[in-house]
Amino acid sequence: MPRLVDHEQRRREITSAARTVIATGGLDAATFQAVAAEAGISVRLIQYYFGTKRDLMLATHTAVVADFGLRFTAQFVALGPEAAPREIIRTFAEGLLPLDDQRQQDNLVFAAFHAANLTGNTVSSEEMMGPPRYLITTITEQLVRERGDESGSHTAELDAELIVGGITGITQGVLAGGCTRERAVELIDRLLDRVLP
Amino acid sequence: MPRLVDHEQRRREITSAARTVIATGGLDAATFQAVAAEAGISVRLIQYYFGTKRDLMLATHTAVVADFGLRFTAQFVALGPEAAPREIIRTFAEGLLPLDDQRQQDNLVFAAFHAANLTGNTVSSEEMMGPPRYLITTITEQLVRERGDESGSHTAELDAELIVGGITGITQGVLAGGCTRERAVELIDRLLDRVLP
Repeated sequence: MPRLVDHEQRRREITSAARTVIATGGLDAATFQAVAAEAGISVRLIQYYFGTKRDLMLATHTAVVADFGLRFTAQFVALGPEAAPREIIRTFAEGLLPLDDQRQQDNLVFAAFHAANLTGNTVSSEEMMGPPRYLITTITEQLVRERGDESGSHTAELDAELIVGGITGITQGVLAGGCTRERAVELIDRLLDRVLP
Repeated sequence: MPRLVDHEQRRREITSAARTVIATGGLDAATFQAVAAEAGISVRLIQYYFGTKRDLMLATHTAVVADFGLRFTAQFVALGPEAAPREIIRTFAEGLLPLDDQRQQDNLVFAAFHAANLTGNTVSSEEMMGPPRYLITTITEQLVRERGDESGSHTAELDAELIVGGITGITQGVLAGGCTRERAVELIDRLLDRVLP
């Protein structure tokens, strides 16, 4: 199906350009004109693939989430089925932090969506909250597995939210320039020491 | 000095209007026109008190920080000089979270400054990072006091950053609508249980 592949490649080119524009200037900067200029294509071609700015923004958000998913999948395959809960949780935490340029850009895109959400633009809160909820569920499962105690699932969920909240706050510190990447890793290890002693 | 008081009152009226506009629409929405309309005064009067938008934005940020400072001071006076380190740290954490409408607005203003900072607008990263650094220092001191061990100040600072990171992440969850105020308090208590067992 060569035509379908072409379509997907073209959509990917456009959302990649949108990611670059959003990471630099936020959602307001991501007009069809700016994204077309970044991608080196025409505005009409973007309109052909994405009818509205909202469509383009949602597809861009989905592309970032999908890339995180692919990276996690590769890492979990490398870890193998016997991986300890703490290793799995640490893999999530490290994978989410802006520790290289790609994840820095991805986190800037998420931050731009969060900021736009607070001022009532483009995407709904429910759509924004999807990835954290999935993360909390998965980390809760790992904590229950580690502790071997179904009765403690309320506690495990609380700790999972604490871990995700910690990752979120540390990420914000790195993006704002108040926390180095090395310090972020140190903080994650400390957080896991505290929650999984 | 009645004239000086009038000046301060007028500056306060203007920054209060700016806070309302920023909390709703972000920094981009806070034009002199929009702030003047919110305050019910003329654009020229705003120009008289604040020469540039950057001046108005920095004064508005300072006003929010000052209000947090006043609330903390009142709470620490109420706690008294014998307050335990955990009580003091918990007072900071509860005071920072968006648990009422005023702090919700204040946190939305901070979030708007953070977002603008990421896209290179208005205020520098150094100016944004001031309050967290002060918080980390103060919480570190309380943790050292609690643990009675000067040799552990590196560990105490790490834990202080973890607490501030946790507060930041939980705040982001509340603002985005993924975490209730009640859950935020539960998470803070859990975090303090973990860091100050």
